[in-house]
Amino acid sequence: MSPTAELAAELETVTSGPDATPLIERLQWRYAAKKMDPARAVPAEKVERILEAARLAPTSSGLQPFQIIVVTNTEVRQRIQAIAWNQAQITDGSHLLVFAAWDDYTPERINAMFDYTNAVRGFKNEGWENYRNMLLNTYPQRGAEVNFQHAARQAYIALSAALMAAAYEAVDSTPMEGFDPEALDGILDLRARGLRSVAILPLGYRQAEQDWLAPLAKVRRPREQFVTEV
Amino acid sequence: MSPTAELAAELETVTSGPDATPLIERLQWRYAAKKMDPARAVPAEKVERILEAARLAPTSSGLQPFQIIVVTNTEVRQRIQAIAWNQAQITDGSHLLVFAAWDDYTPERINAMFDYTNAVRGFKNEGWENYRNMLLNTYPQRGAEVNFQHAARQAYIALSAALMAAAYEAVDSTPMEGFDPEALDGILDLRARGLRSVAILPLGYRQAEQDWLAPLAKVRRPREQFVTEV
Repeated sequence: MSPTAELAAELETVTSGPDATPLIERLQWRYAAKKMDPARAVPAEKVERILEAARLAPTSSGLQPFQIIVVTNTEVRQRIQAIAWNQAQITDGSHLLVFAAWDDYTPERINAMFDYTNAVRGFKNEGWENYRNMLLNTYPQRGAEVNFQHAARQAYIALSAALMAAAYEAVDSTPMEGFDPEALDGILDLRARGLRSVAILPLGYRQAEQDWLAPLAKVRRPREQFVTEV
Repeated sequence: MSPTAELAAELETVTSGPDATPLIERLQWRYAAKKMDPARAVPAEKVERILEAARLAPTSSGLQPFQIIVVTNTEVRQRIQAIAWNQAQITDGSHLLVFAAWDDYTPERINAMFDYTNAVRGFKNEGWENYRNMLLNTYPQRGAEVNFQHAARQAYIALSAALMAAAYEAVDSTPMEGFDPEALDGILDLRARGLRSVAILPLGYRQAEQDWLAPLAKVRRPREQFVTEV
């Protein structure tokens, strides 16, 4: 066997091993569907659980520095499709999730989350207040671009939570960066809300027999090229 | 029914409960544990499934532009702890996952992943080759910093996959950005491998009675402040 064939064979073994759990099985089942069935809508309760997984995802200092816009309006999705390489899933899926990160960490935004935390917990904690002040004394001063990049990474944690939850729900989703962020910000009027789009995620159901990608093997680097142990 | 349709139908049944699913329940159970039990180690098979979830996570163009370093060596973890605000979980947990993103997208790295994909699939596809060339003609020219930031976001997708899989396995994990990335790169000699550390994730088991955070309410923005519908 050639080294590459050997790797391919190992990949095969790894993905059909005895240790699979339902979650791992569903991650093996998921793929970035290219053709979704326009006749099938994702049920509302599944969409809610996918959003809930994103809402529960952890973020740096608990700030949750992003929003999710759920677009079902067909006309709006057509406009988005036009600035996203005409990718068919945007209108063939039933829901389009737009992940939009804060354009900056402002004192108002930081304070709002710390105040809300105190309200939920019903008390003030000195350590937590010191931590609030540390953030207030550092984050706003770093500049909007650094802060946006940081917020975007947090949004990606939630993007991943949503797509994993979708797989768990047997719902197809296709994470996409291939769109014009400024145009999308314009269509959804995000800048006025202090937001910038970073990723989109159509939800729907694969139409496997019409999807060129569906019959192809899932490709991931083998574990030994991906993980190092120290 | 095709095997895929069969699996989809089965998943449909398993996950169509009225509200909570095991996955959502476990995401509610998870929190960023501050005190882990140094006497309890995460079993190897659970660590492997957590790594497998990260390996199966989708990434932009399938490039998987990052590595995971699994640190169990106590002395190395002590050195990492010293450059990470002395956070106790780094040594109280049993495994420390370090997510390290590519410092750049080079033609070699792009070609290696496309060649590997062709090897696994056993054929060349013209569309895929055109896509390879499009990446080769754009990514390397964008500059290392832009590319590193893009790769870091992909690493965050895998970070999220790992922490969700840990929760699903009833394993505690604490995602951390609070460390000196350059110092960590030095300790693990990452720069020589073309890598830069972006996040770390200790794995272990909570010692709730000694954790100030454990009894406090989980705080997340309410759905209506987090989600907008269009």
